This record gives sequence, structure tokens and C-alpha cells, in this order.
Amino acid sequence: MAFEIHEECGVFGIVNSKNAAQLTYYGLHALQHRGEEGAGIVVRRHKLHIEKGVGLVNDVFNAERLSRLTGSAAIGHVRYSTAGGGGIHNVQPFLFRTLKEDIAVAHNGNIINAQQLKQTLEEAGALFHSSSDTEILGHLLSRHKGTMVERLIASLKYLDGAFAFVILTEGALYGACDRYGLRPLVLGQMNDGAYVLSSETCALDLIGAKYIRDLNPGEIVRIDREIHSCSYTKDTHHAMCAMEYIYFSRPDSVLENNNVHSVRKLTGRILWNEAPVEADVVIGVPDSSISAASGYAEASGIPNEMGLIKNKYVGRTFIQPTKELREQGVRMKLSAVSSIVKGKRVVLIDDSIVRGTTSKRIVTMLRHAGAKEIHVRIASPMIRYPCFYGVDTSTKEELIAHLMKIDDLRDYLEADSLAFISITGLKQAASTSQGLCLACFNGDYITNHITINE
Amino acid sequence: MAFEIHEECGVFGIVNSKNAAQLTYYGLHALQHRGEEGAGIVVRRHKLHIEKGVGLVNDVFNAERLSRLTGSAAIGHVRYSTAGGGGIHNVQPFLFRTLKEDIAVAHNGNIINAQQLKQTLEEAGALFHSSSDTEILGHLLSRHKGTMVERLIASLKYLDGAFAFVILTEGALYGACDRYGLRPLVLGQMNDGAYVLSSETCALDLIGAKYIRDLNPGEIVRIDREIHSCSYTKDTHHAMCAMEYIYFSRPDSVLENNNVHSVRKLTGRILWNEAPVEADVVIGVPDSSISAASGYAEASGIPNEMGLIKNKYVGRTFIQPTKELREQGVRMKLSAVSSIVKGKRVVLIDDSIVRGTTSKRIVTMLRHAGAKEIHVRIASPMIRYPCFYGVDTSTKEELIAHLMKIDDLRDYLEADSLAFISITGLKQAASTSQGLCLACFNGDYITNHITINE
Amino acid sequence: MAFEIHEECGVFGIVNSKNAAQLTYYGLHALQHRGEEGAGIVVRRHKLHIEKGVGLVNDVFNAERLSRLTGSAAIGHVRYSTAGGGGIHNVQPFLFRTLKEDIAVAHNGNIINAQQLKQTLEEAGALFHSSSDTEILGHLLSRHKGTMVERLIASLKYLDGAFAFVILTEGALYGACDRYGLRPLVLGQMNDGAYVLSSETCALDLIGAKYIRDLNPGEIVRIDREIHSCSYTKDTHHAMCAMEYIYFSRPDSVLENNNVHSVRKLTGRILWNEAPVEADVVIGVPDSSISAASGYAEASGIPNEMGLIKNKYVGRTFIQPTKELREQGVRMKLSAVSSIVKGKRVVLIDDSIVRGTTSKRIVTMLRHAGAKEIHVRIASPMIRYPCFYGVDTSTKEELIAHLMKIDDLRDYLEADSLAFISITGLKQAASTSQGLCLACFNGDYITNHITINE
Amino acid sequence: MAFEIHEECGVFGIVNSKNAAQLTYYGLHALQHRGEEGAGIVVRRHKLHIEKGVGLVNDVFNAERLSRLTGSAAIGHVRYSTAGGGGIHNVQPFLFRTLKEDIAVAHNGNIINAQQLKQTLEEAGALFHSSSDTEILGHLLSRHKGTMVERLIASLKYLDGAFAFVILTEGALYGACDRYGLRPLVLGQMNDGAYVLSSETCALDLIGAKYIRDLNPGEIVRIDREIHSCSYTKDTHHAMCAMEYIYFSRPDSVLENNNVHSVRKLTGRILWNEAPVEADVVIGVPDSSISAASGYAEASGIPNEMGLIKNKYVGRTFIQPTKELREQGVRMKLSAVSSIVKGKRVVLIDDSIVRGTTSKRIVTMLRHAGAKEIHVRIASPMIRYPCFYGVDTSTKEELIAHLMKIDDLRDYLEADSLAFISITGLKQAASTSQGLCLACFNGDYITNHITINE
Repeated sequence: MAFEIHEECGVFGIVNSKNAAQLTYYGLHALQHRGEEGAGIVVRRHKLHIEKGVGLVNDVFNAERLSRLTGSAAIGHVRYSTAGGGGIHNVQPFLFRTLKEDIAVAHNGNIINAQQLKQTLEEAGALFHSSSDTEILGHLLSRHKGTMVERLIASLKYLDGAFAFVILTEGALYGACDRYGLRPLVLGQMNDGAYVLSSETCALDLIGAKYIRDLNPGEIVRIDREIHSCSYTKDTHHAMCAMEYIYFSRPDSVLENNNVHSVRKLTGRILWNEAPVEADVVIGVPDSSISAASGYAEASGIPNEMGLIKNKYVGRTFIQPTKELREQGVRMKLSAVSSIVKGKRVVLIDDSIVRGTTSKRIVTMLRHAGAKEIHVRIASPMIRYPCFYGVDTSTKEELIAHLMKIDDLRDYLEADSLAFISITGLKQAASTSQGLCLACFNGDYITNHITINE
Repeated sequence: MAFEIHEECGVFGIVNSKNAAQLTYYGLHALQHRGEEGAGIVVRRHKLHIEKGVGLVNDVFNAERLSRLTGSAAIGHVRYSTAGGGGIHNVQPFLFRTLKEDIAVAHNGNIINAQQLKQTLEEAGALFHSSSDTEILGHLLSRHKGTMVERLIASLKYLDGAFAFVILTEGALYGACDRYGLRPLVLGQMNDGAYVLSSETCALDLIGAKYIRDLNPGEIVRIDREIHSCSYTKDTHHAMCAMEYIYFSRPDSVLENNNVHSVRKLTGRILWNEAPVEADVVIGVPDSSISAASGYAEASGIPNEMGLIKNKYVGRTFIQPTKELREQGVRMKLSAVSSIVKGKRVVLIDDSIVRGTTSKRIVTMLRHAGAKEIHVRIASPMIRYPCFYGVDTSTKEELIAHLMKIDDLRDYLEADSLAFISITGLKQAASTSQGLCLACFNGDYITNHITINE
Repeated sequence: MAFEIHEECGVFGIVNSKNAAQLTYYGLHALQHRGEEGAGIVVRRHKLHIEKGVGLVNDVFNAERLSRLTGSAAIGHVRYSTAGGGGIHNVQPFLFRTLKEDIAVAHNGNIINAQQLKQTLEEAGALFHSSSDTEILGHLLSRHKGTMVERLIASLKYLDGAFAFVILTEGALYGACDRYGLRPLVLGQMNDGAYVLSSETCALDLIGAKYIRDLNPGEIVRIDREIHSCSYTKDTHHAMCAMEYIYFSRPDSVLENNNVHSVRKLTGRILWNEAPVEADVVIGVPDSSISAASGYAEASGIPNEMGLIKNKYVGRTFIQPTKELREQGVRMKLSAVSSIVKGKRVVLIDDSIVRGTTSKRIVTMLRHAGAKEIHVRIASPMIRYPCFYGVDTSTKEELIAHLMKIDDLRDYLEADSLAFISITGLKQAASTSQGLCLACFNGDYITNHITINE
Repeated sequence: MAFEIHEECGVFGIVNSKNAAQLTYYGLHALQHRGEEGAGIVVRRHKLHIEKGVGLVNDVFNAERLSRLTGSAAIGHVRYSTAGGGGIHNVQPFLFRTLKEDIAVAHNGNIINAQQLKQTLEEAGALFHSSSDTEILGHLLSRHKGTMVERLIASLKYLDGAFAFVILTEGALYGACDRYGLRPLVLGQMNDGAYVLSSETCALDLIGAKYIRDLNPGEIVRIDREIHSCSYTKDTHHAMCAMEYIYFSRPDSVLENNNVHSVRKLTGRILWNEAPVEADVVIGVPDSSISAASGYAEASGIPNEMGLIKNKYVGRTFIQPTKELREQGVRMKLSAVSSIVKGKRVVLIDDSIVRGTTSKRIVTMLRHAGAKEIHVRIASPMIRYPCFYGVDTSTKEELIAHLMKIDDLRDYLEADSLAFISITGLKQAASTSQGLCLACFNGDYITNHITINE
């Protein structure tokens, strides 16, 4: 389960709607799986007004707080990472009060040359309020002249790495993607004409907006009554993060015209073709591996059962069991259903293996619940290289698939067999994609600034 | 979806544990699906001490509040119903301060002669603090003499209807079931010897307790260091509520040695045998109909897809969309995934149809998302009779399967076809059950006090 | 400072107002000084509806919660005591759901035969939900027949001790006082005709109601469109608690046609006559002794200075300093102003001495701040006998004026001189009173059930 | 009552204490009267860590949040103003994350050339996150080189207006005052050697710190183990804001070796000499005019009574009465005590008149309560000129004493007579002061940048 290390976020924007903040609230709701640590909304009512806080969208906004946010355009953000320290000052959107106008920025992604840019900017007199790399764009914009689009084009050229920005000014709503399209950003429209930007299509569905198209790599859109599009660079290349298909996105979202659930299901079918095994039940790790498990089961004819249960009410205010209670057997989050697995040969489907600790814990849990054999099948290739485009730990030493060969890893997990989908298989599952970043699997980093010393 | 009208609750108790309140907190967590309106814990530390409140277990208890509840035995309750008015005074457990000792009571079920008992007791001087039928047991106990077990035997004889009581006194923990075993109550044990009572086995699994056995119809257990069992009546009969299999219980729970998920899956398989249809995808209504859908898909060979999505973060503090926003298309709770259903012949699996409004809404939603045909298959028989053992609306006039023949109902839902599992089929799915209450399907009320004027 | 042991409360009721709950909220606000531990409001809208909680009126009620309480009549309560354990179940009003009608009761006072009554009632089958003596009236009412007034007359005869009840039924608002009028209860009227009952007149002033009259000892009023009055006994006697003048009531309230501030000021003047001393400054302990200090200063010509400061923002959620911090000198609540007292001969005016610990601490504080001499003058006579009409510790052994002669007490306090106002002096200050209970000063208990073994 | 328009704040800092954040919490508590809108604490534990929020110190910090703030140095801020919009992003301290080190700034005062500085800085590339003038210092510091003291000296020269800064870096605690000493800042020390900076001495008293001295106009102190002092300018001049004596500071604080209460009392005595009147009672407007009223009463021999009462529990979450309720007579905040004022000739003492609306309301209130004559005496001179050093409305048109001659103002207030203390009288009351800013009374602005077009 990849959630151990990735730092994804969700961004949303809307313009020309009299319910801008309310729709942003619902949009962020649909994007909540991309970040549960903090949420914020900026609304435009002449100037920009902000409300943000630590926690789930529901924790941060109550009816009274939301009702204060009247206006005709808004952007919002849900935040995953605790990198750079938690606390309210790193929660987005960021709001800049320039003499000319207010500017708000929400960001999904990771700027890999953030530290160098920060240093250069500081030497030129910039004063940083946060440890977030999002603030860098604010400083770059303030140091360029011209229209907002001109300033964006000039500023984005400085940034290496992954980004999908949603920006609100007193004049318009803007969206911008990095030259590789590493992070998705889609455009939609409500029945009343309001335009919407969102990290995923599931937010469009929830608010009843029609999907128009994905933003292209390197594209900048300026949206007011109409949509104006341009690029900040001609040097673009389609390479969306493959983990969006495998783990990040909601199964009901559509990426590059692919339904995510269907792609995941296909990875399951392909896994069966690549690594079949005789077994009694197929069990997916909830929630992200349910689709792949269903594909494996359908292809194999082995029944797909609910042998692992996730406690859905466990929120951030949940009181964690003490060590003593954990030793007594208190199991939060996931539990194995012994009436399903006892005496059975189990195919365990998971979406990925990063550090390996979670997978090992699940195998142990199934073994204690009575599983006779456990065959682990992973719906992504081996993650052998660090990701620099949205990950908070950047060393190979934490990646168990970097440290061990597959047989050793199988032994470490105490599984009876272990297989990963091949890179070819993954490409086949997402065959309509225009290009994927597979760097974490094969080390081919699309941006030219990264060298890994093998 | 049956949740429209049923009023289920969850009860939990533990004795001989130094972490009694903590384990009750986790136990209630596992039972949270049985009631999201209120939660309470009573702990024994010489006298009994109570903390309770409105909302989810997580909303009611924070670390500080839980840490106050030290003691060696505890009971807890999660409450579904808002019947009798919401508010803190109807949240359970109820705590009675008698001169002899403190007594706390938590109840799952519905006492059908509550109104008559209340009147008789009031005429004899009883003063009621709540509109809950649970308080009646307290008054009955206080009017009988002898040991607690003797008073329980004498008191329970008065009660008609469904009940599973968990009771804590300064001396012991008690459990009691009605003569039909309408509501489940299971007994388990921790590694350190602590005994546990719970509405469902999923709470045992979560805290690492071993399942021992179900309580029998009419059984009273008194648990201190040991377990003493007796019955308050010899006139008993196995008739557990069939809806526990169909809707109430968590899929990972075990009822009468049946895994609930497996029973549900079997209803899906039987549905296919009873009502096959040519189609492209099988779609279950999340969360309760996922298992049945998987059974239908496996039996038919039609792929099982995620065509409906439930927004899992929608809690009780969620800000509901205004009418205007709903008309603009904002969809909370459930949304249809058009990339899955567009142009497809859909088999829609739901667990039950009560008033019919939810089912109709889902059919419409799928139609708008592009489904070509919609074949509704219901994993329970037609609910044609009111339930008196755990339902807050008791008139047939609200039951759409009472009002309409199946063809009219199909037309009302605007479905292309409609079928319900037969009563025989349901019995077959739960074949190891020792006896089910099927009154809501066939009108055979097990208690002799109910007459329905046809 | 008497607050160490007394358990006072505030009660409020209103009928025939379309803003009943709102006005009760403001009324409770004015009575907040009588109880900061809990607050509750019951409103009548056909049936009775309750909201209550732990904390200040402001903590318990927010705009949303208050807005739910629509109706034409209401009662409210603020609670001081933590006796019987804190927690929501002891917060008032109490609400009883009888078959005939809902009844809500709020109580200020102390029933001295509560334990005997509770035992008798339990033997007759009553079931108690709380450890509060207020619940007893509910049980007595439920065991009598007739109109509510008839049942009140029959029930109140059983109660010994101090009480001022405000009761709301579906039919009317009721007020009732014990035969001695130990606890004040006043009647007022709004411009729009709504009638109001309140523990103190300050609540009438705040909501703009006109004061009509005090309730008499033993009086019951039934208020709907009109006021009906009767008595539950002919054996009545004016004996209001003297501490209402000295400590409990707000200085702007009027008791028996006496402005409380003026009575307190007069105690200060009389104290000067009875116990003059040469000094540089008069300093009153805030807030309750400010009036008496001003009287002493005016009579003596010695300047009245602000030598002690109370931190007004310290609420119940205040984080108390650790022992380490207290030892470092962190002073909450009260601090001495050294720029006022340094090198001065101080007359320290306090309202009362109960256990003596607070007074000793204040003397020490002034000494450390540089006071040269400290002459303690107490605006009430020596409290040598326990109070049974509103006190939670009932043993003489805690009363320092019972344990020590005045010279020893002066030495214990490390004061340069010490004097208390005489009982005659106190009577003179409250000269228009129709009769006071002075039992805590002279041991003359007005109820005949109390014997103190000297 | 001056609170209508002034925007004061409170700042606090401590270094070399193992309880730095706790003591800051208590210090802010003592300074709470200077700002009830927001509070924040930054603590040093290698890097700087911040917690801040909207509301009272008690609302913002709970035990858990405070316990996170471990460290050996801290600064804190309480904020009055809602200028620039409320919300979390304007709450102080501000924290800047520079590559070299973290810097936190808390500010009391008003920078009158903020707008020009902001523009200049933006033109040089600065990016502002807030509308607060405090952020300017951060940008100035980041654009200078050298030691922190060198950068402070260079930066402060740019600032015109009033300021008392408390600054924390990873290396030391700093304090800085403007060249006129317009806003007070005092230095103290705990028994264990920890040094403290505070806006007022009352915070020293509360935490048990010894007062050392006031900071001088233009002084910068750098405090680590020792105190290093310097000045950022030689052009200094003592001119502390006279309103600190009259309204802002707590009566128990000491300003320039004057106890504030004593100065206020003296203004009352002088008012009597300057404007005597025959009357029955003297009544001060609580809380700020109580001291002056006591001085007037003592000098005149007229009794000082509690004829106006302030409801002390009214906090920021208080539900304001609707217009309808206000018209019915609901009175929050202040109420007149008719038992004190009825039929009396009243001398009403208030600290100041700004817009006049509050004073007029109080006169009306007393008249309704039955006062026969009302003689208004104001303990400050007529405020005829806007303040630019801590006021959020800067136009003379709002100052009623600018708009009307005294006789017209008396008629507007509907008072029987009206007098203000003379400027000479005020100087006499604060005779030990080294120099006061009296610009709001006489238009003599100490800073040379202000011109008022008469």
C-alpha cells in the first residue's frame, strides 16, 4: 500500500458561479482521498477571502464558516503531507496580498529544485513564511512584470518537477500543468456555464459538472467568461504518473479517457495471465486493491471474497490503541476475516509494495486467521527507484524492492509465492494513455536534472 | 436500501479487564454501523460512571474523556434511532442510582408492549425520564426483589418483542436475549481472561477476543470471574431477524456460524438462478449490496463493476447541499460512474426495497449516466409487512411492496426488469441458521400479540 | 470568601413570550454568578424540549442550539455544585416524561431530608436516575393525584430545607418557595405581558422586565395568562438566607426591597463604627467585597484603593499552573498590587471567612507585596455553624471560626488585627428585611429537624 | 469609552526558562484586556514553532496544544484589531522561515508609513502574505545584512509611528521601541534568571517576575544569557501615549513608575477641583472609569455607588440579542441599577468620549432608570484630533469633540452638565511621566510626517 510515503494533494477551482465556495466545498469532498491533513478555500468577492484549517474538509468547514465565503469564483485545496511540519501555516491555498491585487495559489505536486530556487530568491530579498514549495511560485510571480499570463509563463519556466496549479486572482481563474503532465488536471463545466478545474473527474461528477478535457502538459488556461489557453513551453512530453492509475485516483475517476477502476481491473486480469496460481479465494486489500482483485478473480474463476475488512469510521481524531492493547490484539484499520480465510489457499492482491512493512503485516494477519497458503500478487511493478515528483522520502534505501531480490522479498513477507505485474503488463492495462512516468519502476526520470548513483 | 426505517443499535460489555473502557471504545467502533446517532460508555470503579453524547463514537469520546473512565468492567452502546426525539437524554446506556447499587442498561431491540407497560408502571408510581423503552427494564427491576438474576427473570417475562440487553451492576456483567433470539448477542473472551458480550463478532475480532458462542433465545448470563447461565422462560424458539443477514450486520461478522458476506454472496448466486438476465455488467449498491452483487456476477459470468460510488467521508456534520445545488446536479452519498455504465445493460443488485424512493433514485441516476437497460435484482424477498421488532414506522402503507404488485413496482422504478429473491431462496442461502424471523416478508409474526388487519 | 463551600444555583422561568428560550438564555446569563458548572433550558412547544450541558451558559448554548428551542414558555437553570459527581446527568432542569404530560423542574436550594425521602420512595418502587435531590420532587408529584397545584401542595409538605422551584408543564409555569423563604424567587413582567420568575432581579433588569414582587415563604404560583397564588402550608416564617446579602446575590439585585450593593456598603460603614483602625488604605477583596470596602472607606475617610486585582478572563477551560510554576510565583485569580500597598497600613475587607485558607493566602500576598500592617475586617459575623440549606460540606470541623477564638484566628491569618461585624450590625445593615436566617452565625436553625451536638 | 476605535495589542517574550511557553500563556492572560480577537505563541526548540488562532487566549490554547510548545524561549501576542480583515492569517506572531534561521515578530503599535513602505518593498520584489503592517519589519530585516542587531538598527530607521516589537530568533530574544516610546515595553526577571519583556507590568506580577525597568525610546535590547542594549537612533524623545494611563493599561500596571489606578484616581480628584457639582451619587462606567470615579467621590465627599453593572460573562461567543429583543429591553454589557439611581442627582464619570454614541446610550440608560440629574465628567481632555499611532479610523469627522462645541455636545448627550479634565489637569495627574503624547487632545503630533488640514 503506497500511502506510506506519497504526498499527493487535490486542487479545485471554479469561476462564474454564484455558489462558488459551496461547490468548491463539495468538490474538495470528492477529492478528500488525496489529502486528509488540511483543507482550505479562497473565494473572490472583489478581494480574496480565505478560510482554512487542519483536518478533513468536514472538520475545517462548518455551515457558518462556509456561509461567510460568498463570491463568484473560488479555489480549494486538500493536503496530504505533513512534510515541512504540520500546522496551519503550511495549509493551502496560499494567499498573497500584493498592492495590485490579491493572488491565491493551490498546488498539487513537487518542485524538485525548490531548495535552490528558495535560496536564490532569498538572496534577492524574498521573505518566506512557510516551508512549502508552493510559496515559491508567489515569489516568482511578484518578480515578473506584465499580464498574469505573461508572469506565469516567465515563472513556470523556473520550476522543475511535477505541478498542477490552480490560481485565483481578482480577475480570473488560472490552471497550469508541468511540461510532462505528471499530475492530472481536468476542465469541466456546470449547466449554468460555470467553469471548473479539478485534480480528478470524480469532483465534476459529484457537483454535476460535465467533463470537457484534460489539461495538456505545459498548458496554462486563463478562465473568466471564456477560456484562453497557451503553453509556457514547447518542450512538452506526455508522462503522467503511473501511480495515479494504480493508487492515487478514485476508482470512479477518468484519466486520459480511461476509467480508473477498469484499468485496475485489467491489471488484475493481466496479473493472472502473468502469474497464475491454484487457489481457493482471491482477496484484495481494501480500498485501493479491490478492483484489481476483482479482475484477477474474474480471469481466474477463483471466487473473490471479502477476507480483509477496513474500519471505515477511523478518522484523524481516533484514539490510537496503546502498545499494551495492540499486544492484546486490538486491530485498527484492517482486520482479517477468519470465517473467509480459514483453511483456504489465498491470493492476496495489493496495489504496490513500498517499504514492505504493511504487506508483511497483512500476510501475518491472514496467516493468524488460518489461511493455508498465501500467494501475493502486486498490481504494480516493483518500485525500485525513488520518486521525486510527489514523495517525501527520497532515498532508495527505504524501498524494499530496491534492497531485495524477489525471492528474498517473498521470504521476508513469509508468503508462499510472490509476483508483480510486469512493466509491459501495466502499459497494456493503461493502453490508451498517451505516455506514463514509470521512473519509480525503471529509473527513467523524465526530467533531466536527476541522476541516481547506482 | 433498508436503512430508511430500521432502528438498530449495537451493545457491548466487558468484565475483568483493566482496560475495560478502552476496549469498549474499540468495540463500539466496530459496531458503529449499527448506530451513528449517539454513543455512551459506563464503567465500573466501585460505583458506575458514565460518559455519553450525541454523534459518532469518535465525536463523543476524546482521549481526555476516555481516560477518565478507569475501571475493570464496562458496557457501551451505539444508537441509531432518533425516535422519541434526539438529544442526550435518550442516548444509552441508562444509569440508575438505586440505594443498593448503581445499575446501567444498554439495549438493542424494540419492546412492542412498551406503551402498556409504561402506563401500568406509571399508575404504580413510576416516573419516566425518557421516551425510550429501555428505561422500562430499570423500573421493572426496581419493583422486584431478590438477586439480580431473580429480578431479571421476573422482569423480562413482562417484555414482548425483541431485545438484547447488556447490563452492568457493581457486582457483575449481565447479558439477556428475548425468547426468539431476534437480536444477536455473542460471547467472547480475551487472552487475559476478560469476558466480552457484543452484538456482533466483528467487535471481538477488532479487539482480539476469541468467539465462544452465541447467546441462546431466552438466555440470561451473569458474568464475573465465571459465567453463570439460565433462562427466563422455557418457551423459546429460534427466530433471528433475517435482516441481520441481509442488511444490519457487518459482512465480516459471523451469525449462527455463517459468515455474513458469504450468506449475502449466496443470495446473489441464488438470485441469478431464480432470475437470470442477459447483461453487460453487474453493479451492487455500496456498501451493503456489494457481496450479493459479487455472487450474482460469479454465478452468471457477467463482470462485476464499480458503477456506483459512495462518498465515504460524508459524516453527520456534513453540510447538506441546498435544493438549488441539488437541482444543479450536486450528488452526495451515491454517484453513478458513467464511464462504467454508459451504453451498458446493467444488473443492479440492492439488498432490499422498503419505501422504494432510494431504489427509484438509483435507477434514475444510472439512466442519466447512460445505462441502456437496468435490471433490478433484490437480495431479499418483498417486504410486505411491517416489522415490530426494531422499526420506527409501523404501518404497511409505507411499504411499497405492500402497495404494489411486482410489475407495477418495476414500472414505478422505471426498471427494465425486476426480481426479488424468493423466501425459499433466502432460507437456502442461510441454510445453517436455526430459524429466522421472516415476518416482514410473510406476515408470520412469532410473537402472539400482533394481528395485522389485512 | 464564601465560595469555597456553598452550592447555590440560579433558576429562571418565562411564559407567554414568543422568545421564551432566548429570554431564558439572557436571564441565565444574568444569573451566571450563581452557578458556572452547568446550564440547561427546557422550552414548551406542545411537548417539552431540553438542551443542557456542562459549563457556562455561553459554552452550553450556541446560536444553532438555541435556535432549536422555539416555544412560548421556558425554564432554565445554572448549577454551581459538583456534589453527587459532575457530568451531564446531574445538570438541570430535569425533565419527566409522564403519560399525561411532560414536566420539567429546576431547583435552587437543598432538601435536608433527601436521603430519607429517597429511601422511602425507593422502597415504594421509585427508580432514581441521578444523585440530585431535585429528582425527589418529580417522584413525589408522580405519586399524587389531582391538579398540578394539588399535587404540588401534597408533595412540598414532605420536603424539609431550602427550595425555590421553577416548574414547567405543558399547561403552565409554576414557582414554589419553602416555608421560610430561604432562597429568593421574584416575579416580573415584560412589556408584552410575558411573566417571568427569577432567582434575582438582575435577570429582570437585563431582559427589560419590570419587577412585581418577591414570592412569599410557602407560596406556590401557577402562571399562564394570569397568576394564581396559594400556599402549601400555613406554617410560614420569613427567614431568607443572610448570605444572599453578603455573598451570593449580584450587587445590582434587589432583595426584599434592599439594593444588595447598598446593604453591603452599609455593612462596611457599620464595620468601621464597630471596629475602627488607623490606616492608609482600604482594600476590598474583588468582586464580592468591593461594596463593603467602599462603605468602610467612606465612613472612615481612609482612601479606598484597588490593591487586589482579579483576572477576569480566567474561565473553566483555563489551564491551571503546575505546582512548579506556582512555586515560581505564577498567581492566577487574585494578585496584590505592590505599587498600591507597599509600605502602607492596609484595611483588608472580605465578605466572610469559612475555612480560612483563602483569607490567609490573601494576607500573605499583601505582606509579600510590601504592606506594613494588615487589619482584616469581615463584613459578616463569624460562621461558626454549618449550613444545611445550601452547603455541600456539613461539618463544623471545617469552619475555622468554630475551631478558633478570634485572637487565635488573627494569629493564624498573620493579620495585625481582625474584626467581624456583629450579628446586630448585620441586622441593622439589612434593616428592611422581614427576617433572616442567621443559623450559620448563631446556630438557631429555623427548621426543627436539626440538632447540633455541641 | 475609548474602546470603539483604538487598536491596541499586547506583546510578551521570555528567554532562558524551561517553561517558556507556559509562562507566555500566563503573561498573555494578564495582557488579555489589550486584545481579545486573536492570540499566538512562538516557542524556540532549535527551530521556531508556532500555535495561533482566533479568539481569547483560553479559546486558542488548550492543555494539549500548549503542551506541544516545549522550548526555552518564547514570544506571544494578543490582538485587538480586526483591521485588514479578521482571520487567522493576520493573527500574530508572524513567523518567517529564512534559509539562515527562523524569525518571529510580535508587534504593538501602528506604522504610519506602512503603505509607502509596502509599495517600495513590492517594487523591489517583496511578496506580502497579510494586510498587517507587522510583516513590513520582516521584509526590511531580510533586505539587510549583518548581525540581527545591525539589521534591526537599519530596518527600524525606516519605520514612522508607534511600535513596540518583541522578536524571537534561533539565537536570542529582542525588544525594540519607537523613538518616542509611544507604546510601553517593560523588562523583568524571574527568580530563576529568565528574562521577560511585556507590554505591561501586570504580566510580570502574574508570573512572579520582578520589574527591572522600562525600555527607553529608540532602544533595542538583545537578550540571551545577558542583556545587550543599544539605540537605533539618537533622535529620541519621551512621549508615551496618554491613553495608556487613561484607558488601555490595566489599573494594577505601573507605567513610568506610576500606578495606573492611582493616576486615574487623581484625574478624578482633579476633575472635581476643575468641575465640581452638587450631587447625590458618583457613578463610574465599569471597568475603566471606576478608579477616576473613586477619586472624584473621595475629593467631593459624594458617595461612590455601583449604579452601572457590566455583565462579566459576555464573551465573544455570546449570542447577541436580535433587534426585536433589544427593543423589548434586553440589555447586554451594561445595565443601570435603578435602585441606586432612582431620584438621584448623578455624577457620571467616564474615561473618554470618542464618537459619543456610547456615552449618549449610558446617559439615556440612567435617565430611564430614574436619575433626576446627570452630570457627565470625563477623565480625559476632549479628543479633537485623530490618532495615527494605534487607531483604525483616522478621520476627524468621527470625533464628536471635533464636530461639536462642549455645550452642543452636552445637549447631544442630553446631560445636565458636561466637563472634561483639562490638558493641564491630566499632566498634573501623571506628573511623574517623562513626557506624554497628547496629540489626540491638542493636535501636536510628535512625528513630523503628519499634517492635519484644519
